[in-house]
Amino acid sequence: MRSIQIYDTTLRDGTQGEGVSLSLHDKLQITRRLDELGVDFIEGGYPLSNEKDVEYFQRVRQLGLERARICAFGMTRHRGLSAAQDPGMQALLASQAPVCTIVGKTWDFHAMSVLRVSLEENLAMIGDTIRFLVQAGREVFYDAEHFFDGWKAKPDYAAQTIQAAAAAGAKVVILCDTNGGALPEEVAELTRAAGQCLQSYGVAVGIHCHNDCELAIANTLAAVDAGAIQVQGTINGLGERCGNADLVSVIANLSLKKKGYQVLAGRRPERLTELSRFVYETANLNLRNAQPFVGQSAFAHKGGMHVHAVSKDSRTYEHINPELVGNARRVLVSELSGRSNIAAMTTKHNIAHDRALMDRILAEVVRLENRGYQFEAAEASFDLLVRRCRGAFTPHFERVKYHVAVAAHDGADVITEATVKLRVHRELRHEVAEGDGPVNALDAALRKALNGSFPSLRRMHLVDYKVRVVNSEAGTAARIRVLIESKDDQDSWGTVGVSENVIEASWLALVDAIEYKLYKDESAPDAGLAASPERPAAVLPEPDTLPSA
Amino acid sequence: MRSIQIYDTTLRDGTQGEGVSLSLHDKLQITRRLDELGVDFIEGGYPLSNEKDVEYFQRVRQLGLERARICAFGMTRHRGLSAAQDPGMQALLASQAPVCTIVGKTWDFHAMSVLRVSLEENLAMIGDTIRFLVQAGREVFYDAEHFFDGWKAKPDYAAQTIQAAAAAGAKVVILCDTNGGALPEEVAELTRAAGQCLQSYGVAVGIHCHNDCELAIANTLAAVDAGAIQVQGTINGLGERCGNADLVSVIANLSLKKKGYQVLAGRRPERLTELSRFVYETANLNLRNAQPFVGQSAFAHKGGMHVHAVSKDSRTYEHINPELVGNARRVLVSELSGRSNIAAMTTKHNIAHDRALMDRILAEVVRLENRGYQFEAAEASFDLLVRRCRGAFTPHFERVKYHVAVAAHDGADVITEATVKLRVHRELRHEVAEGDGPVNALDAALRKALNGSFPSLRRMHLVDYKVRVVNSEAGTAARIRVLIESKDDQDSWGTVGVSENVIEASWLALVDAIEYKLYKDESAPDAGLAASPERPAAVLPEPDTLPSA
Repeated sequence: MRSIQIYDTTLRDGTQGEGVSLSLHDKLQITRRLDELGVDFIEGGYPLSNEKDVEYFQRVRQLGLERARICAFGMTRHRGLSAAQDPGMQALLASQAPVCTIVGKTWDFHAMSVLRVSLEENLAMIGDTIRFLVQAGREVFYDAEHFFDGWKAKPDYAAQTIQAAAAAGAKVVILCDTNGGALPEEVAELTRAAGQCLQSYGVAVGIHCHNDCELAIANTLAAVDAGAIQVQGTINGLGERCGNADLVSVIANLSLKKKGYQVLAGRRPERLTELSRFVYETANLNLRNAQPFVGQSAFAHKGGMHVHAVSKDSRTYEHINPELVGNARRVLVSELSGRSNIAAMTTKHNIAHDRALMDRILAEVVRLENRGYQFEAAEASFDLLVRRCRGAFTPHFERVKYHVAVAAHDGADVITEATVKLRVHRELRHEVAEGDGPVNALDAALRKALNGSFPSLRRMHLVDYKVRVVNSEAGTAARIRVLIESKDDQDSWGTVGVSENVIEASWLALVDAIEYKLYKDESAPDAGLAASPERPAAVLPEPDTLPSA
Repeated sequence: MRSIQIYDTTLRDGTQGEGVSLSLHDKLQITRRLDELGVDFIEGGYPLSNEKDVEYFQRVRQLGLERARICAFGMTRHRGLSAAQDPGMQALLASQAPVCTIVGKTWDFHAMSVLRVSLEENLAMIGDTIRFLVQAGREVFYDAEHFFDGWKAKPDYAAQTIQAAAAAGAKVVILCDTNGGALPEEVAELTRAAGQCLQSYGVAVGIHCHNDCELAIANTLAAVDAGAIQVQGTINGLGERCGNADLVSVIANLSLKKKGYQVLAGRRPERLTELSRFVYETANLNLRNAQPFVGQSAFAHKGGMHVHAVSKDSRTYEHINPELVGNARRVLVSELSGRSNIAAMTTKHNIAHDRALMDRILAEVVRLENRGYQFEAAEASFDLLVRRCRGAFTPHFERVKYHVAVAAHDGADVITEATVKLRVHRELRHEVAEGDGPVNALDAALRKALNGSFPSLRRMHLVDYKVRVVNSEAGTAARIRVLIESKDDQDSWGTVGVSENVIEASWLALVDAIEYKLYKDESAPDAGLAASPERPAAVLPEPDTLPSA
């Protein structure tokens, strides 16, 4: 078993991604989680670039990390300065990070045309910088920027740059596919070549890939097979352009799929899914449902035949057991599903023995799908449906009527007003509210009518709203499906409404969202069926009769 | 140069993806775009599974495709039935698709444990099915399900299954990594092995990968290097679990990165970005910004040093020229995006020489995109925008006001009424109409006010309506983007409206749709700029001032 070092650069290279930004607090929290997972190195930032990174290196020393070593990122010294004079070197030393990762130029064209330094000066900049930091007692990794492009353009010079790093005391030379343009066969060949040219120095190579050709994982694995001992990447593949190699997939592949390697000191990667979602949440980014290994769809089965086969033996349509990475199987209800989907989706309801009930549920799903419903992204509406079929649903409020008006005079603001009349605990409530749009106004009026009786609704809000025409052949008179996603402090849940009228469809989805929330609150404490942090528990009851679209 | 066949299964395997569903109209539109790109084969669906797919195969024959051949998907005959008796075979023949793609079992465990047929019967099912279809004059491709798992478990039997397919007349045997669990080195080795075992039959192999290990592209390329002549995949990698191999990346890698291969009959893949975004919009899915080659971030530069280097020489941080795939460089800080985009989008207007005008258009696009507009699927709105910037726009009618009311009493029908007040040829028109929904009612009132003056509007109608929250973090108060597709006897065209209010956004898109139609009718006869059947000609003028959302 060859042990492969995992080097995380989510906090530095990951934040180069479009829309990715992390506060100091975020960075410290992610650091702790990375350490818990068992990564070897965490690159915390570039201490010369901003105050936040400077402070990070001070604060991270108080975290008491178990296993991970903290790395500070920097560049080779400027031309014409000694290393000791260079502000970058001073910042690296001041960070007190035990490991410094220095990036330098490999590609003759880059050094001469962009940096405008001679090829000799570039070699001196690499050597001086590393020697200075090693003499100051730091462990140094050398990131060879544009290694593959540089080697393809001028192999002798590229070799000299990494040999200069090795001679100066770099512990590992990391081959960077900076532009993400390399192919696996090139990476394999040049990684072997680099390893040979560093052999006499006793220095090993690492790999740092980008995903511009959708090959970052394959390139990373090819380099490991060709001798690389360290892998650099980011959680969820965050990073510039198309992102870095996703450490989630790298770790899962090296520990569960490839033979002969050990990562994370042999720990099983059972916390990968949790870590992936934590990073998305912390960075305020949307999950990627189809993400390999950890995505919400990664082990989701839709076709009835597949569901049937998986229920007989999961190896038929799952390449690994999802629990190995902390993920879970999901069965989706769709037009393609059969009784096996329903059985799998209702395991938590514990009703599989009741075949008559299962048949009623299936018939109801089919009936609603024919009317345009879709429960894949509306698990809360599906749970309400199950509750109705079980006869375990009593609405928390009775809908009497609503009215929505939208008026626009050209040049003036659009005015939207909604009135809602409900019966709550036998008492009539009639409320009016304005909103930015009809759904917003309806939601506001609904809450005005309900908040007094159900104060927990104040902690619930809508996070997403999607509309689609189900049968688009009939223009605006076609049926319209609205999906609403809501969340509170603990969970998020999806509901669906269908009608020829977009307002009515939205109203149905809104009412479902609120009923689900109210049942959830009632059943959470006592039922022992607490919602998982990822997805809500399913034994939660649901609205009344079916949406009267 | 070895020519590699591109086989698209977006319409069948793609719709197995969570949240992916396509109407018949969507499927036909995507078919047309795939044909324009130049793919070799389009798998339209599974004619036994539902009415929509049955109708697809009838309708697709009227499209007059230029290059692509349509394939119908099916399974090997049921056990105990002759091929001729099998309803699946009858459905395949009735589809009249010239190519049939048949999936069968390769893995002994799967055949015996899940399908519960003997290994001999499984071989007979494969052979009988293919022979039957070949005798009926169809070209047959054979998808060997679980090929890699099957071969690893029992190579002799796996070989017998694909030899049975070849002996029966299959033209290509496609090796499917159904569970997405194979590694590139395995794919390379077993593709060579399969190729050898089919050599005496003169039958070549193809490849069909899934992305469960984030290796679908690498596996696909490895198979091509090992001799595969056909690649199956989907646009944007849509598909079950983590998706299929993304044909976007496959095509870009084979035509721009790998040496020695030809795809799309040698056409350059300049329409890949447009096609990718069209499929996302049509399926009402969010774009993936970091998607390789075609994502909005794929050539976006954030770090100042990178931007500086790219401005000196783009090779420093771009592995290819983004225009090769129809994408564009973006510099995130300065928002300097897209003049080349605009230039590309306005070639038909013949205004590239007028740099001041180009800059005004660019500024207007940037301003509107910041407000949530998106012109990829709304070329008619973009053409109106160009007309406005040219000062060549005078509205056909002046909007004074509208009012929409939706009222629902529980248990009764929802009532929707819209009033519209316009000034047409200096005359005020005030009309009221009911509709199934607010957009339908507005559309009806608008036409009531306009039909007298513009009788050609009677031949125009709405065919699709899509709504999407642009910034989904703020719940129902977020901005809402409405896309409307309209058509008349000759053309179809897309328009867009954005507002916090779904009714107002719909109204803006409706007004654009009508103005576009009116300008189109005026310019069609004399200008020699007749609209193409696919997409409208672009010299058509457009509404007034910009949507006052």
